[in-house]
Amino acid sequence: MARIVQKFGGTSVGDIARIQNVARRVKAEVDRGNQVAVVVSAMSGVTNQLVDYCNKIAPDVAPDYDQREYDAVVATGECVTSGLLAIALQQLGLQARSWAGWQIPIATDGAHGKARIASIDGAEIVRSMESGHVAVVAGFQGLGPDNRISTLGRGGSDTTAVALAAAVKADRCDIYTDVDGVYTTDPRIVSAARKLDKITYEEMLEMASLGAKVLQTRSVEMAMKHRVRVQVLSSFTDQPGTLVCDEEEIVEQELVSGVAYSRDEAKVTLVGVQDQPGVAAGIFGPLADANINVDMIVQNASSDGTTDLTFTTSRSELERAVKVVKENMKVPHRSISTDKAVAKVSVIGVGMRSHAGVAQTMFKALADKGINIHIISTSEIKVSVLISEEYTELAIRALHTAYGLDAAA
Amino acid sequence: MARIVQKFGGTSVGDIARIQNVARRVKAEVDRGNQVAVVVSAMSGVTNQLVDYCNKIAPDVAPDYDQREYDAVVATGECVTSGLLAIALQQLGLQARSWAGWQIPIATDGAHGKARIASIDGAEIVRSMESGHVAVVAGFQGLGPDNRISTLGRGGSDTTAVALAAAVKADRCDIYTDVDGVYTTDPRIVSAARKLDKITYEEMLEMASLGAKVLQTRSVEMAMKHRVRVQVLSSFTDQPGTLVCDEEEIVEQELVSGVAYSRDEAKVTLVGVQDQPGVAAGIFGPLADANINVDMIVQNASSDGTTDLTFTTSRSELERAVKVVKENMKVPHRSISTDKAVAKVSVIGVGMRSHAGVAQTMFKALADKGINIHIISTSEIKVSVLISEEYTELAIRALHTAYGLDAAA
Repeated sequence: MARIVQKFGGTSVGDIARIQNVARRVKAEVDRGNQVAVVVSAMSGVTNQLVDYCNKIAPDVAPDYDQREYDAVVATGECVTSGLLAIALQQLGLQARSWAGWQIPIATDGAHGKARIASIDGAEIVRSMESGHVAVVAGFQGLGPDNRISTLGRGGSDTTAVALAAAVKADRCDIYTDVDGVYTTDPRIVSAARKLDKITYEEMLEMASLGAKVLQTRSVEMAMKHRVRVQVLSSFTDQPGTLVCDEEEIVEQELVSGVAYSRDEAKVTLVGVQDQPGVAAGIFGPLADANINVDMIVQNASSDGTTDLTFTTSRSELERAVKVVKENMKVPHRSISTDKAVAKVSVIGVGMRSHAGVAQTMFKALADKGINIHIISTSEIKVSVLISEEYTELAIRALHTAYGLDAAA
Repeated sequence: MARIVQKFGGTSVGDIARIQNVARRVKAEVDRGNQVAVVVSAMSGVTNQLVDYCNKIAPDVAPDYDQREYDAVVATGECVTSGLLAIALQQLGLQARSWAGWQIPIATDGAHGKARIASIDGAEIVRSMESGHVAVVAGFQGLGPDNRISTLGRGGSDTTAVALAAAVKADRCDIYTDVDGVYTTDPRIVSAARKLDKITYEEMLEMASLGAKVLQTRSVEMAMKHRVRVQVLSSFTDQPGTLVCDEEEIVEQELVSGVAYSRDEAKVTLVGVQDQPGVAAGIFGPLADANINVDMIVQNASSDGTTDLTFTTSRSELERAVKVVKENMKVPHRSISTDKAVAKVSVIGVGMRSHAGVAQTMFKALADKGINIHIISTSEIKVSVLISEEYTELAIRALHTAYGLDAAA
């Protein structure tokens, strides 16, 4: 017997027929002799409707109305789904009961609208599971220190599932979604992309934060911290998905596991900056104070006493970033230029920790296609390059082939 | 300063604009210097949608699925409205917070789907009101002994409001609805019907149970028990409504306060029943066991050792009632006849306790119009007659005039 936590997103529980379909999947797991807890999202469209109500009732200040009331309104969507799924499971002859976040309870830090889970008391829910009941848990919500409902922010149901799996010491947390796993890269760009059987937490974290929108970044962090084995799989097929797990569980580790990309990039270059101590601090301090996320940074040494300093930020923040830099620029410089037509492409793999030459393969593959690299950034398990956006697909395909990731035809 | 509980039903909070309108009404009460708690229903249509989901997910057993899950699903509607109204109130510059039933808590007996309020701990909500916050309470729900949400059954928000008013020792409970008060009779039948300024609990209870669907019967019982002054008024006008209160508060008590009627009546007559001890018990025992509500009963003495026994029940239960009587009829009788074309008309007034001749005025008024009386039934504060349905309007108009209830032209 194993203990499994399953999570179904809004599309999987989008209408009555789909909720009944989810019930059959849960039953299949119970029939295998397993104890099951299910975390559900709101039916697709419901959360948007509820958020829309809030925005319309306070149009002048939206979305800066009382987040405690926002939470009270928006968290109801998941409660509806959990009650309905419990009924559907009972219809299939199973014992089941629904749990709202406050009933378990899932304690949060009380940062309404974007709360983090502080702790989950798994005792009562484990008792219920051990008495033969499927636990159907409303995702995305918990109870703050003020005894009021707090939501975890969009996508919080993934985090609920992983945190619950940690709390009840589950053997696995299955995240059902509309894709059937994690791929070596975006299959819409590379038709030879392969589904990975396994991927490490560290790699998944890089993939998630680099734009592969399969799992919420926060849920991967939590899985890594508590060593929860997470499987990503499709709720519309019966195929096994991708297991996110410890490095030790992966016998044949590839050098590079995947190629990720992000188009939400913009580049800012300060030209002819006086080359003196404190320049970087004078530029990036104000940006940090303005809560603007800076990703890659590069500074070119020069011979004439000046230097060019380039950094990247997300496109939506570009305008604000330039404004902050201009207003705080006390260091002499010639000009500021910006470029929004850029993209970041990254190769990711824990295998590169122990292998040299991984970056060199990347540079050569890109050079062979005539692709110019604007910026290079590396970490222990990834190499990222900023290139002109028009080369994005070409670069991804070239790298996918260069690292031997293409599926056999 | 007074402490007021206001209650707004589904139509009054039917959309965003109406919720904003309700917020303005609440503000007017606060501007008068009063402490206010507001009880809200779900937006009109929402509860039906949620019940429909439950029925569709368990079509084979509906509505006999797990009522605990039904409650978890259906109670969310009121939580949405209370959160939205709290935001709307804040938009008007007031301090406000929403309360779900479990947060107050409103303790129920745990009869899921049709729970009764066991007790309300008013301490925390009073503290919040005294700190200057409007309390916005989700109606229709509470927390059962099993720590799960239980709903009070349809119309339960009236009961929530009255019970809350009792718990926080409110000076008045204002029930906003789509009519502007309690009338001497149905204004659709008698154009000269008058709105009553005040009515006693006892009279209101008779009016409510006799078909004047202004207030939930249970909420009036609760108001009477806890001596909560209840005002029924319209959420669409600015007129004062009808105050339901103690007899002592009504200086000039009318002899008769109103004329009520019910068309949901059916008559069953057992003809030529052997006149012997135990006959009534033999007939009405099985009906009670079958949970069939019997209202009026009349037995005519006879000379030939047999008697005719007539009783009334609601039309929807007529068929079942006849079946039960036939299957259990051990007493010799000639035949059973039924009549669905009947109506009950009643005159109600606490004044008749101390005045003779009230019934006589009724019988004469009906006789003058040639209306035959099938059955007469009386209580301390009402006289009811069963008549042929076709005379209903005629009878109501005649009685309304006979008791001097017509408004001055």
